[in-house]
Amino acid sequence: MTFEEARGAFPVLERYAYLNAGSIGPLPRATYDAIAAAERDELEHGRGTWRYVTRMLEARDRLRASLASLVGVEPELLSLTTSTSEGCRIVLAGLGLTAEDEVVTTDAEHFGLTGALHASGARVRVAKVRDLPADQALDAILVEVGPRTKLVGLSHVLWLTGHIVPLEELRQAVAAPLLVDGAQSVGAIPVDAAAFDFYTVSGQKWLCGPAPTGALYVKDPERLAVALPSYFSQTSYEPDGAFEPQSGALRFDPAWIPVGFLDGLQAAIDGAPDWRYDRAREVTDLCRRRLVEAGYDVVTEPGHGTLVSWRWPDETKEAAQALADAGVLIRDLPGTGLLRASCGYWTSEEDVERLVTGLSAL
Amino acid sequence: MTFEEARGAFPVLERYAYLNAGSIGPLPRATYDAIAAAERDELEHGRGTWRYVTRMLEARDRLRASLASLVGVEPELLSLTTSTSEGCRIVLAGLGLTAEDEVVTTDAEHFGLTGALHASGARVRVAKVRDLPADQALDAILVEVGPRTKLVGLSHVLWLTGHIVPLEELRQAVAAPLLVDGAQSVGAIPVDAAAFDFYTVSGQKWLCGPAPTGALYVKDPERLAVALPSYFSQTSYEPDGAFEPQSGALRFDPAWIPVGFLDGLQAAIDGAPDWRYDRAREVTDLCRRRLVEAGYDVVTEPGHGTLVSWRWPDETKEAAQALADAGVLIRDLPGTGLLRASCGYWTSEEDVERLVTGLSAL
Repeated sequence: MTFEEARGAFPVLERYAYLNAGSIGPLPRATYDAIAAAERDELEHGRGTWRYVTRMLEARDRLRASLASLVGVEPELLSLTTSTSEGCRIVLAGLGLTAEDEVVTTDAEHFGLTGALHASGARVRVAKVRDLPADQALDAILVEVGPRTKLVGLSHVLWLTGHIVPLEELRQAVAAPLLVDGAQSVGAIPVDAAAFDFYTVSGQKWLCGPAPTGALYVKDPERLAVALPSYFSQTSYEPDGAFEPQSGALRFDPAWIPVGFLDGLQAAIDGAPDWRYDRAREVTDLCRRRLVEAGYDVVTEPGHGTLVSWRWPDETKEAAQALADAGVLIRDLPGTGLLRASCGYWTSEEDVERLVTGLSAL
Repeated sequence: MTFEEARGAFPVLERYAYLNAGSIGPLPRATYDAIAAAERDELEHGRGTWRYVTRMLEARDRLRASLASLVGVEPELLSLTTSTSEGCRIVLAGLGLTAEDEVVTTDAEHFGLTGALHASGARVRVAKVRDLPADQALDAILVEVGPRTKLVGLSHVLWLTGHIVPLEELRQAVAAPLLVDGAQSVGAIPVDAAAFDFYTVSGQKWLCGPAPTGALYVKDPERLAVALPSYFSQTSYEPDGAFEPQSGALRFDPAWIPVGFLDGLQAAIDGAPDWRYDRAREVTDLCRRRLVEAGYDVVTEPGHGTLVSWRWPDETKEAAQALADAGVLIRDLPGTGLLRASCGYWTSEEDVERLVTGLSAL
């Protein structure tokens, strides 16, 4: 697959310099086609049939296997969720923490994770890593870990700075389980989730699938309570709700996922080129370099994820909106003074130049 | 709107006697069109834009108002969920029950409710109503209610028998809050949810919307903890996840709902005729009468919901599959020996005759 072919899969790129996959990815035509075909089938042949349910279950199996392969885990240990936030809620609700417990996170996390940490009732200790050089993050996190720590919950790639957290070192240094939020990693950089206790996946960001879609890896399903059961969680149940759980992490599957979304995410995954990570790395480096050359105060260090953030002296929301009017789509990060560009394997040199030109015109 | 016009909105009815809205409703063409249009917009104009987010938020407001009006409550007190199961999980997780507490339910509930009751950790007391005459259900439920009862959770219309639970009398007799599962009521019979503490709504059954869609009414949002927060739950948040909740029940909104699903459920609601409940009542009575006349052991008493169940002496799954092969779609109710037909305002006399003829050919 050539770069032009890969890029040609996304009609939105014909109109915009789309640099916002960190919020939500561009949609491939094949994904749209899969959704439309499945919805048409529902329209004409109904949703309450054996054939339909069989098709739905087969699509779940297929997608589970693809997502598991993508993050290097057994399909049996992967739950199909609708978002990384939902994955975090499943884990925190299942751990049954109390006010005596502590959980550790960083000050550069999305509310999808920290909201769940807060709601768990445990004391949340926040490591201040956002304004530190990336190589000092590990020490800052370890300082917050203590005998009461029941979970360390943080991102693989921080959504505010784009920095990669040194998870492997963290895992070796900490006895408590690790919940890794993969919102900004899966599909953007190579991921091997098997080493961690919990790992969340977003289908709608770097994998370019329908929203909402996602997954949750659970290393040891027997040790996490099914706090939020769905009809998919059980193989049989009693009138009082007691139930035989599905095998492995399938017991955590929280929801019906539309057939079109299962097929649509599958199509998006199947359509990605095998050079995806190399190209994303390259164009992110280019984007970062061009912003530095243009004189912006870039906070993202070289060689991390595929997000690039830089300080903006004025209202970030106004800047992002003005850029959008010029056809350049990026993200303002509220309350931080930062603007952020997301670079994917589909991003062209011209997209990067449109960003730099657009910024200079503000 | 004539009956023929209303029926003509559902292409699946041209092929099948579709009597399975209790599992999942027929899909109107207008809903398909709304989904396809929204997905095409995502494809061509992207999902990470101000225009798109604004459109999404407006569609949420509009749908929230329509659903609230449908069940007679203030929009401010209605959370947009993805299913009745999710609504039950939000309530049970928020109540913070312990093993000292008791919750009361019936033996004719769906796992979507009882699974959440079980997972709450409270003792679940099960009122045996399934094999009782409908007018003895209230007493059977009240027997289980005691000083430790922290919640009574049950359906408005029981999915196994189609019987309506006398909620108004129950509410007056019980001090504990009432969680009403509206999966088999909203869209099928008139509903006034305002009198109850919690009421769940399914968008994909009798309202004929996309799956998964739904809602949760919360009478007093300040008194239920936000145990499963999402990005929609807050107006601002701290690094440790502490947050200012959204007003009213909006704080319980658990998930992104695709624009096409918001618009699609809206189209389905807007397309329903104002004679929906009268016609559904009439054709359900007809269906019940015809099954009784044909000699079947109908367990559903006259004048209840829009489900009709009857005992089947052989394998129910085989019977339902054989009927499906003959173009008649009903539901077998696993482990009960019951078959179930769902009658909507769109159901014709001919559909009912196809069911009776199909059964006699088994």
